[in-house]
Amino acid sequence: MNEIKIFSPATVANVSCGFDVLGFCLDSVGDNMVIRKSGKKGIHITKIEGFDLPYETVSNVAGVSALAMYDKLDVDFGFEIEIYKNIKPGSGIGSSAASAVGSVFGMNELLGRPFNRTQLTQFAIKGEALASKCEHADNLAPAIFGGFTLVKSISPLEILNIPSPNNLYATIIHPQIEIKTSEARAILPNEIPLSKAITQWANFGSLIHALHTNDYELIGNSLNDVVVEPYRSKLIPHFDDVKTEAIKAGALGAGISGSGPSIFSLSKGLVNAMNVKEAIKNVYSKTEITFDIHVSKINNEGIKILNLK
Amino acid sequence: MNEIKIFSPATVANVSCGFDVLGFCLDSVGDNMVIRKSGKKGIHITKIEGFDLPYETVSNVAGVSALAMYDKLDVDFGFEIEIYKNIKPGSGIGSSAASAVGSVFGMNELLGRPFNRTQLTQFAIKGEALASKCEHADNLAPAIFGGFTLVKSISPLEILNIPSPNNLYATIIHPQIEIKTSEARAILPNEIPLSKAITQWANFGSLIHALHTNDYELIGNSLNDVVVEPYRSKLIPHFDDVKTEAIKAGALGAGISGSGPSIFSLSKGLVNAMNVKEAIKNVYSKTEITFDIHVSKINNEGIKILNLK
Repeated sequence: MNEIKIFSPATVANVSCGFDVLGFCLDSVGDNMVIRKSGKKGIHITKIEGFDLPYETVSNVAGVSALAMYDKLDVDFGFEIEIYKNIKPGSGIGSSAASAVGSVFGMNELLGRPFNRTQLTQFAIKGEALASKCEHADNLAPAIFGGFTLVKSISPLEILNIPSPNNLYATIIHPQIEIKTSEARAILPNEIPLSKAITQWANFGSLIHALHTNDYELIGNSLNDVVVEPYRSKLIPHFDDVKTEAIKAGALGAGISGSGPSIFSLSKGLVNAMNVKEAIKNVYSKTEITFDIHVSKINNEGIKILNLK
Repeated sequence: MNEIKIFSPATVANVSCGFDVLGFCLDSVGDNMVIRKSGKKGIHITKIEGFDLPYETVSNVAGVSALAMYDKLDVDFGFEIEIYKNIKPGSGIGSSAASAVGSVFGMNELLGRPFNRTQLTQFAIKGEALASKCEHADNLAPAIFGGFTLVKSISPLEILNIPSPNNLYATIIHPQIEIKTSEARAILPNEIPLSKAITQWANFGSLIHALHTNDYELIGNSLNDVVVEPYRSKLIPHFDDVKTEAIKAGALGAGISGSGPSIFSLSKGLVNAMNVKEAIKNVYSKTEITFDIHVSKINNEGIKILNLK
């Protein structure tokens, strides 16, 4: 086994009331990557298609996470990485996370799985930090574990896999505008009212309970972010309209994906998710802003092997 | 059916990271109450034993909640209430909540259950507000629903019953000191750091997940309150020692019960809970402060009927 081709999925982080800790994994959007053992020691990025990203290992998210793992190995060979990027960098659906987990997942498979999924996340955090300038795992965890994940803590790294109903679909619109991560961060207050924090954890606890009990209605009622969305939604044109129309069209709830600009919604069943797609397409079609829309089942498997040689 | 005798349980509110929204119900501590149909219209408190509480209906918590329900009825009779109080007022284990739910639960049974549990909680909120000067349900909900409850919202009132492992026990120490509710409130900041709020909802989400999955270890790891406990624990002498010794003796975790002064801990199994009892008894035995200690299984049934006539 010298070569592996994988699908590294896009992910939605934050999920309204789960700011900074919750995420879920998508099925129909993601990168492909090929990882290959090589006689040449070290990590080498040999191909990048789709978007213009750096080939230099230490400047590439997939390279940095691969190096973090490689430093723990004592092997006389190296790895080549090919990246076939579909997730646009900066879209807010975990583009850098997909790259960061892809390399380490692939290497781990080729090595016979010496590391568990939490350890893989730990390596990938190093790659993610290159892109986002801080160590976080709310996109990495769902990409590696699949489904919904709760990052209970970063240090030590503790990740919980939260079950979810079978028939849950996401509809995601990516307006092609740029939101700088630094701006999305700077807009948040350092302090928040205790009363709002209480509302947020009531909603978050309810969401975790709703996911456990397959209570679609409660999932919708819990998807309220009173802390972050009021600030960050201002950076996304027509956010309120998209949210309103999504819910009117049958979505359980909607919110900002990651730090934006993508907006996610969750729906019970594919039909609702497709209706939501049409409704939010209508909102943005009236504007000058170009956009992509993705509809995806929640991916409970996470990152997966497409081919082994 | 003209008379009912009930057991109205003590409860623990807040439960560390679940500040203001989570609570659980105790089994071995509670008040007894008798509710009786009477030819005399209105609500009349005819007996109070245990503690010195007002007989005047509008000044008594059980009376006020009973009146809230009575106002919704169109009946040509009234109710008499007898209160046999075991839960010390001001102990922090839901003394006023037990009184508030007892009257309305008993009346509802005598009337053939015209109201559901959420509606009973709504009436009881009026009584609780007399004692605590604000409308909250974090002790009422577990007393009425049993087990662990999450008050998702007060208006509209939404209560979720959270399942919990079978073998979960609470050990509660009540140091006989007075903490004024007003003081316990005034000590809290109006604003908290966003970073601490995030830690709190990560822990709270983890606790809900842990209760669903019978993960005792995770229950313990999630019982961390980084928002309120650092302030309020200063009002409780030897709080840190009690917490440390409880955990050393085998408790999963410990924290302030309600707004104190009681301190609760949770343990897997009765043996651990009894060991915790000895350990925290040792802490307070060295002081001049008198105290009670209760050990109780989590009461999944909530308030219950002892006798019907």
